[in-house]
Amino acid sequence: MKKTAVFPGTFDPFTVGHESIVLRALKLFDSIIIGVGQNTGKKTYLPVNQRVKLIKDVFKDFPQISVTSYEVLTVDFCVNMNAGYLLRGLRTAADFEYERAIAQVNKAMKPDVESVFLLTAPEYTPINSTIVRDILIHGGDASKFLPKKIDIRNYL
Amino acid sequence: MKKTAVFPGTFDPFTVGHESIVLRALKLFDSIIIGVGQNTGKKTYLPVNQRVKLIKDVFKDFPQISVTSYEVLTVDFCVNMNAGYLLRGLRTAADFEYERAIAQVNKAMKPDVESVFLLTAPEYTPINSTIVRDILIHGGDASKFLPKKIDIRNYL
Amino acid sequence: MKKTAVFPGTFDPFTVGHESIVLRALKLFDSIIIGVGQNTGKKTYLPVNQRVKLIKDVFKDFPQISVTSYEVLTVDFCVNMNAGYLLRGLRTAADFEYERAIAQVNKAMKPDVESVFLLTAPEYTPINSTIVRDILIHGGDASKFLPKKIDIRNYL
Amino acid sequence: MKKTAVFPGTFDPFTVGHESIVLRALKLFDSIIIGVGQNTGKKTYLPVNQRVKLIKDVFKDFPQISVTSYEVLTVDFCVNMNAGYLLRGLRTAADFEYERAIAQVNKAMKPDVESVFLLTAPEYTPINSTIVRDILIHGGDASKFLPKKIDIRNYL
Amino acid sequence: MKKTAVFPGTFDPFTVGHESIVLRALKLFDSIIIGVGQNTGKKTYLPVNQRVKLIKDVFKDFPQISVTSYEVLTVDFCVNMNAGYLLRGLRTAADFEYERAIAQVNKAMKPDVESVFLLTAPEYTPINSTIVRDILIHGGDASKFLPKKIDIRNYL
Amino acid sequence: MKKTAVFPGTFDPFTVGHESIVLRALKLFDSIIIGVGQNTGKKTYLPVNQRVKLIKDVFKDFPQISVTSYEVLTVDFCVNMNAGYLLRGLRTAADFEYERAIAQVNKAMKPDVESVFLLTAPEYTPINSTIVRDILIHGGDASKFLPKKIDIRNYL
Repeated sequence: MKKTAVFPGTFDPFTVGHESIVLRALKLFDSIIIGVGQNTGKKTYLPVNQRVKLIKDVFKDFPQISVTSYEVLTVDFCVNMNAGYLLRGLRTAADFEYERAIAQVNKAMKPDVESVFLLTAPEYTPINSTIVRDILIHGGDASKFLPKKIDIRNYL
Repeated sequence: MKKTAVFPGTFDPFTVGHESIVLRALKLFDSIIIGVGQNTGKKTYLPVNQRVKLIKDVFKDFPQISVTSYEVLTVDFCVNMNAGYLLRGLRTAADFEYERAIAQVNKAMKPDVESVFLLTAPEYTPINSTIVRDILIHGGDASKFLPKKIDIRNYL
Repeated sequence: MKKTAVFPGTFDPFTVGHESIVLRALKLFDSIIIGVGQNTGKKTYLPVNQRVKLIKDVFKDFPQISVTSYEVLTVDFCVNMNAGYLLRGLRTAADFEYERAIAQVNKAMKPDVESVFLLTAPEYTPINSTIVRDILIHGGDASKFLPKKIDIRNYL
Repeated sequence: MKKTAVFPGTFDPFTVGHESIVLRALKLFDSIIIGVGQNTGKKTYLPVNQRVKLIKDVFKDFPQISVTSYEVLTVDFCVNMNAGYLLRGLRTAADFEYERAIAQVNKAMKPDVESVFLLTAPEYTPINSTIVRDILIHGGDASKFLPKKIDIRNYL
Repeated sequence: MKKTAVFPGTFDPFTVGHESIVLRALKLFDSIIIGVGQNTGKKTYLPVNQRVKLIKDVFKDFPQISVTSYEVLTVDFCVNMNAGYLLRGLRTAADFEYERAIAQVNKAMKPDVESVFLLTAPEYTPINSTIVRDILIHGGDASKFLPKKIDIRNYL
Repeated sequence: MKKTAVFPGTFDPFTVGHESIVLRALKLFDSIIIGVGQNTGKKTYLPVNQRVKLIKDVFKDFPQISVTSYEVLTVDFCVNMNAGYLLRGLRTAADFEYERAIAQVNKAMKPDVESVFLLTAPEYTPINSTIVRDILIHGGDASKFLPKKIDIRNYL
């Protein structure tokens, strides 16, 4: 059976850390759907269509990777997409506790969707979207924390 | 001397995890006052009167449990209620650090109010109000995370 | 019903932190049994009879506190002693994770024994038996980390 | 390409938590090799051949699962076995930090071996080999923490 | 070369914990610049000019300590101030993970600015600005958590 | 006044992570004394004289760095050496909790010795002596985790 994973997130913005997890997961899954969450209540730095566009640009040479936004619960999105796996990266112990609660509740709701975790590479451990966004908002140069081919100014 | 405990929280909403802590604490205390905090600045999913009503419905067969909302500092609420104990459940290490700071500051302010902690049962560890609320907001079925006799639609 | 708690530990040695937890728990329980574990396989700094004697000396003015050594599983010791509560102090997040595993397994084995946790006071948070023992082994002065009335040289 | 994972551990003893991780990983991998580490310097409760036999008995109906002991570095064992994945279960934040260090060092040594993590189910979170072993050593009944078909007395 | 450190924060409000870190760092650095962040998007309890004034009042007898607000990225503020060090206090494990991410990203951006950490004294560990602010908002007495010479009513 | 720091540890073996902390601390202190602890009760991989020799070889071009073994308590070693600072590297949250307890007890014993922490660089975060030693014991190649100029075979 084809193994499909959803890699969900807000990706505001998508970082080198996210990119690295997706690339390393490619050999484990037949296809990966990057799901860009639209927390309608929450104001984001980049609008959802620009976040989707940026990630599509990052992976335009990978036909087995698709990118789409979603508004439903993440596990429901997995079921809708016929994806049996939820892919997540783990950076820190604080991350872990948060991810564990989400994953265990998801499992209780949809036992057929299995959460699978990869570890962020050491050099990407400090990088998260909040910090990168903060640099961008203050006019700093965040290019070394963003995927190489991306110029963030094209998505603002 | 009668042992009275306050079990404080926002309870937005009250979950099976909260219910389990209160039921297990019943043999330790003579009476338990469930204090529903009214963080006036913070928007909640359920209005405070509905949160109070829901919890009253859960424990309507337990005369030693009362439910009331409060606006003052939690330790001041304990003193006002003549409660010598602050009851809290602990789920995760992240919880613990947060609870420890609050409890130690409370102790510094009112040394006669002792914080007492019970551990959430393993099966309830991933359940917290934020996750349950998120399921409800997205139209998911959260009934297995809510007290058995509660139909959340009656409180919206 | 009388509320009896077991406060278990190796207590090698018993510190001001342990003493503080027992004293604060006195109003919550009718009697406290301090159980000194005899991990027969493990070499200790103080022999078990001296650890028992030291703790008895600390609490000699408290008739509701008794001290005894035990070799069985801690939950079995509670059942043998007709104690419905297991009292533990929590210092750090690392402590918490360890204590949680033990308490949840104990609960699975003997559901009638409830683990109850108090928080160490901030000033005692860094003090644990390992550090105090290390000071003693190196000939340092650990008196400020030991109960006031205790001269450790009387128990070596 | 066939996806082979090594699930390494000391398994002293193998618990329901370990069993659950392996069973859930079955759909992700084509074959799983359970590697039983022989830390020659460390005294174990069960000898290595009995640990291997016990696990073989647990999975005797699963042809895609094999069990073998090993003495080399875990990543070298993976390479020797042509396994591209290292499978591990995560229980707690403390686990996580330990596993992260090991996994990141393994990745630095053998970049082609990817560590993949599943989360322990909530009800198995408190169960680890140390606690189970401690129950067994004290003559307690650990059967609810061991795989259902296993009578530990057959392996002592 | 003169050693100058920036001690950055929102300081809403400045607590005894902050004061203690600065005083202990005095012998390590030749001068300390307390940088009061103006997160323009975030509503604060005290306006930035009052936060600056309060801290100036605390340290008015220390010519080697200066206080100033800033709006740029913290590392850029350090570079602008010719400060080679970023001073931070660490209270808890949760603090640590947050501080580590910030510090490692700062190091990647400006390798010449070194983050240096002191540990909060045990008695100040539970005190943070959020808790103190919460006490003040609820009309409680937070004076024991604020620098001794400060009457908070003078800054509201 | 001259600023002298002690950098204490077992260093069994000294890793690239340790080397990096010392090099980064050089500009903060006038001299650094690397103190190699002789836990007489504990069996080490490298004998203490070889651990001292290895570290001396690493820093032979740095006259402000000295290396010496010690058997007393670490804070007493600092006092004996007229060192006002204890330098430590922090890698993980687990590290942090351990280091905090030690540092706060040290501070209670010798208030004039200040513990100062630097953060390990992200790429060295997973590296600790236990893991490196384990690789060496199993005959693996640990050279990328050891200081560049060191061939470990010269010290066995």
